[in-house]
Amino acid sequence: MKPDKEILLIALGGNALIRKGQIGTIQEQFENLKVPIQQIARLSQKYRVIITHGNGPQVGNLLLQQECCDAAPKLPLEILVAQTQGQIGYMIESTLDTELMNIGVFTQKIVSLISYVVVDEADPSFSDPSKPIGPAFTEYQAAKLPYPTKKTPKGFRRVVISPKPVTIVEKREIKALIDTDFIVICCGGGGIPVIREGRSFAGVDAVIDKDLASAKLAEEVGADRFVIATDVDGAALHYGSSQENLLEKLSVEDARRYLAQGHFPSGSMGPKIEAAIAFVEQRNKGAVICSIEHIQDAIDGKSGTQIIS
Amino acid sequence: MKPDKEILLIALGGNALIRKGQIGTIQEQFENLKVPIQQIARLSQKYRVIITHGNGPQVGNLLLQQECCDAAPKLPLEILVAQTQGQIGYMIESTLDTELMNIGVFTQKIVSLISYVVVDEADPSFSDPSKPIGPAFTEYQAAKLPYPTKKTPKGFRRVVISPKPVTIVEKREIKALIDTDFIVICCGGGGIPVIREGRSFAGVDAVIDKDLASAKLAEEVGADRFVIATDVDGAALHYGSSQENLLEKLSVEDARRYLAQGHFPSGSMGPKIEAAIAFVEQRNKGAVICSIEHIQDAIDGKSGTQIIS
Repeated sequence: MKPDKEILLIALGGNALIRKGQIGTIQEQFENLKVPIQQIARLSQKYRVIITHGNGPQVGNLLLQQECCDAAPKLPLEILVAQTQGQIGYMIESTLDTELMNIGVFTQKIVSLISYVVVDEADPSFSDPSKPIGPAFTEYQAAKLPYPTKKTPKGFRRVVISPKPVTIVEKREIKALIDTDFIVICCGGGGIPVIREGRSFAGVDAVIDKDLASAKLAEEVGADRFVIATDVDGAALHYGSSQENLLEKLSVEDARRYLAQGHFPSGSMGPKIEAAIAFVEQRNKGAVICSIEHIQDAIDGKSGTQIIS
Repeated sequence: MKPDKEILLIALGGNALIRKGQIGTIQEQFENLKVPIQQIARLSQKYRVIITHGNGPQVGNLLLQQECCDAAPKLPLEILVAQTQGQIGYMIESTLDTELMNIGVFTQKIVSLISYVVVDEADPSFSDPSKPIGPAFTEYQAAKLPYPTKKTPKGFRRVVISPKPVTIVEKREIKALIDTDFIVICCGGGGIPVIREGRSFAGVDAVIDKDLASAKLAEEVGADRFVIATDVDGAALHYGSSQENLLEKLSVEDARRYLAQGHFPSGSMGPKIEAAIAFVEQRNKGAVICSIEHIQDAIDGKSGTQIIS
């Protein structure tokens, strides 16, 4: 037991594996993981660590592949999310194994586990698919696709149902694991979405936002620090314009106001801000949104956007 | 800690999810899991339980799908194995959750974890791909395929490299988990094959036989019982002929002799017998090969082929 060590939950964005402009070969994905995972390896010697991760491009690729192919049965989205948990969990775990050995740590226990997350079948998203996943298309291509798409800053993308996370089914297991000195990799892609049906769980054809699921897990295991690592340096006002202004500190109150003013787009920075607000309010501790290059600096208060109560 | 409870390792064959004649829709796979998982739910109240599982049809489907589709990068076999661990791990875990609730157990901890398995890069299989995976083709279809195939009892099937398992990377984690009362689902599809490269692991484009990997894990965690659950009632002499003779008890010595005489085909019963022999010799305890319908009876000595020293 290491109850003395603070619990650090790090949510890795999709760009930890696939950078802008890359198609996402397996070599690229492993290479990209080194920068965040080297930092996490060092941090794990000081904190109890939980790692969560996105899966947007990976689940998008699996969807494309099964749509190309009539020789195998099509699987619902929650099964594809489960598949990406296997893939990305393995990639993070094996990279972390290597980076721990590189700093002389040979006995750290690590587990990458399948996570499913309960959602509410009354969630309004079931009648309004709006979460973009997979590759971007031109307007002309998008019009021919057999599923709903939406215009995003990257182009037209497929949109799917994305309900809010209610509870992480494996929360007790995850807490028991970090309390016995495991590093835990979990909640991949926001978790496999399930609804309760009496005495059982049933998967639903949807995805859960990984930052919102991570905030829920951080609340449920009592995390002390919540880091959302992504492909920008933090949250900014007037993002992408000549007046862009990176925010170093952001109160929950200001975060809410800027969110309402539309500074944080719903497909990208919006859910990160929402997740940070949820964590700060529930735990009364700080969250930080930062670049995957500067996780350590962000924890030290030297980088990223610190969200405080 | 429950050091008093024996450790039971159950290796579920691919037919626990997809039966003969089925194409493997997700509904079929969940429905099929009920029979073995109901038994395992009850057994988990008496034993510390580890569940491993096959992935032949599932990994074959992922291969087919990625070969159909040029829009997404192709991934090596070890990544597809990782994806099936996510998929099947989720399906087993959520079915087990339900079946435990059905018998009034609400607090059992379960974890389904990603497992990788070290293989030896000098293993002879690297120059002789011979493990069948995926669907069966006619001889005419097989001749047109861009990869090696082999004639099997089901038809012509793709063959891939399948080295012997050397060690399960997560063995310490798995032992720690069962010792703290977790049910552990692991080593899916025989584990993700990796070779050691200095201070790191590198995945290889191969699959590991799940029964041999299960036997290795049973040895490494000190299992007391090893159950190989499959689609036949046990090992038989003259299988498939009019002289077919199911073996109720089989010594290691006889098992070796029958194996050499060709009673147990290399693609199906052969590795199960090899795995049982390895376990019995290493642990000096009995293994059983049985139908997924009769796991409980097989443990009670009333069904299956008992392999003894």
